[in-house]
This record gives sequence, structure tokens and C-alpha cells, in this order.
Amino acid sequence: MPAEPTGRRSGCPISFALDVLGDRWTLLVLRDVLIKGRSRFGELRAAEEGIASNILADRLKRLVRAGILVRRPDPQDRRRVVYGATPKGAGLIPVLLELAAWGATHDAGTAAPAGFVAAFRADRDAMIARLVDAVRR
Amino acid sequence: MPAEPTGRRSGCPISFALDVLGDRWTLLVLRDVLIKGRSRFGELRAAEEGIASNILADRLKRLVRAGILVRRPDPQDRRRVVYGATPKGAGLIPVLLELAAWGATHDAGTAAPAGFVAAFRADRDAMIARLVDAVRR
Repeated sequence: MPAEPTGRRSGCPISFALDVLGDRWTLLVLRDVLIKGRSRFGELRAAEEGIASNILADRLKRLVRAGILVRRPDPQDRRRVVYGATPKGAGLIPVLLELAAWGATHDAGTAAPAGFVAAFRADRDAMIARLVDAVRR
Repeated sequence: MPAEPTGRRSGCPISFALDVLGDRWTLLVLRDVLIKGRSRFGELRAAEEGIASNILADRLKRLVRAGILVRRPDPQDRRRVVYGATPKGAGLIPVLLELAAWGATHDAGTAAPAGFVAAFRADRDAMIARLVDAVRR
């Protein structure tokens, strides 16, 4: 588990991004919120990669603190909470899709749907717009 | 420092990508090779974020093993080695530029050149093509 960033390593925008996102779990949590439309702790906990509850809780807390996710009462059951993306969070959809396209291109055992990479290359902007629209709801 | 991945967490292409790239240093090393055109250990060691030699050596070894970088004799001094990108490595240029655009958009203290985000949004494909072309040389 990375140390909580106490400062910044440089003024580089990539370094800034990795200070928040640079570990093996954070972008997977964001994948579930931004691409898969999951919002409850239990749904996020059920990710097939098997994230531990304490790691998930820590990453959610950091993402809320970084202004990437928001924690709010579940509109369907106000005793529960759900996590949603802020505009800053939704801005990571292109990063996630580029990672997915790279992974699907170079991983022979990928579970990505056949045709995903071709569809992404052919109509990237529309795919991003659809996902941004979905997380805004 | 993350454990060396001994298997994969799932078939998800994003998870696959993060198994290789998901730590605070790996993508910074790749930024230096792919965006800044650095190729020697000493140049990479001099990154402003202050990467330790043992971490840099470890990440370079993993990236070579993953087929993302290649290690070869320096054409200008064959007693030395340089690191270059494979096509798989060059395929990460869009990921790095998206991270840079996100970081520069959301970091008030960014050192990104003024106008970078606007230039990237306006002519993303050309910017990527220029960088891919530069690492192929």
C-alpha cells in the first residue's frame, strides 16, 4: 500500500496524477465506478480482482478527499451510501479507456469483448461521451 | 514497492495493464523514455522526482521483461546501454498524454506548458503520432 502522499514529487502533471492514482487498486476502483456503473461499497467489494475491504475503504476515502469521488446517501435507501464521480473523476474516463485498449491489444488472455479495441479506435469520442453521460446521471 | 506480479488478478484489460504499470514510479520512468526522449540510466536517474537507483533498476528490469522497453548497447558508446521503447511500449503514449492532460487540468500548480491541454484536445492524434515517431528512431 502506498504511503499517503505528503507532498508532491514535482510539478509534472503525470507525476501529480500518479501521486493520486499510482497503485494497483485505485484505478480498478475507478473502473468499477466510471465504466461499470457500480456505486455501493458491497458492489465495489465484489470486484473480481478480490480487493480487501480495508484497502477498498482506504482508496475510497482518498478518492473522496482528492475530489474524484463523492460519497452521498443512496437515493433508494437513505440509510446507505453510494459513491459517484465528480467532473474531475469523470475526466479519468479517457485514461481508463486508453489503459483498456492497451491491455486488450497486448494481452492474449484478455476478457475484453471482441471488437472493443476496434470500436474504441473507430469512435473514441462517442464512447467517452456515452460513459461521461452515464456517470453524470 | 509492489510485489512482482505472480499471476493475474482477472481477465480485465485494465487490471492487466495495472499489474504491470500500477505503481507510483513505473509510468514516470516511461514518461521519461516515451515523452522526454531519455534513454540512459543516468538520465532516468536524474528525473526531478528523485527516483532511487534500486527502484529505477527494478522498474527497468520489469519493463524489459514485460516487453515494453528494450535494453541495447548505446550506438554512440557500445560499452554503455540505453533503453528504448518497443511498439508495445510506444502504445502507452496515449495513456501518458491522457494522464498529463488530466493532471494539468486539475492541478493548479502544474508545470505543464501553458496551452498543452488545449493543444492536446485540439490535435490529439497528431501529438501522439509525433511522439510515436520520435521513439521509433
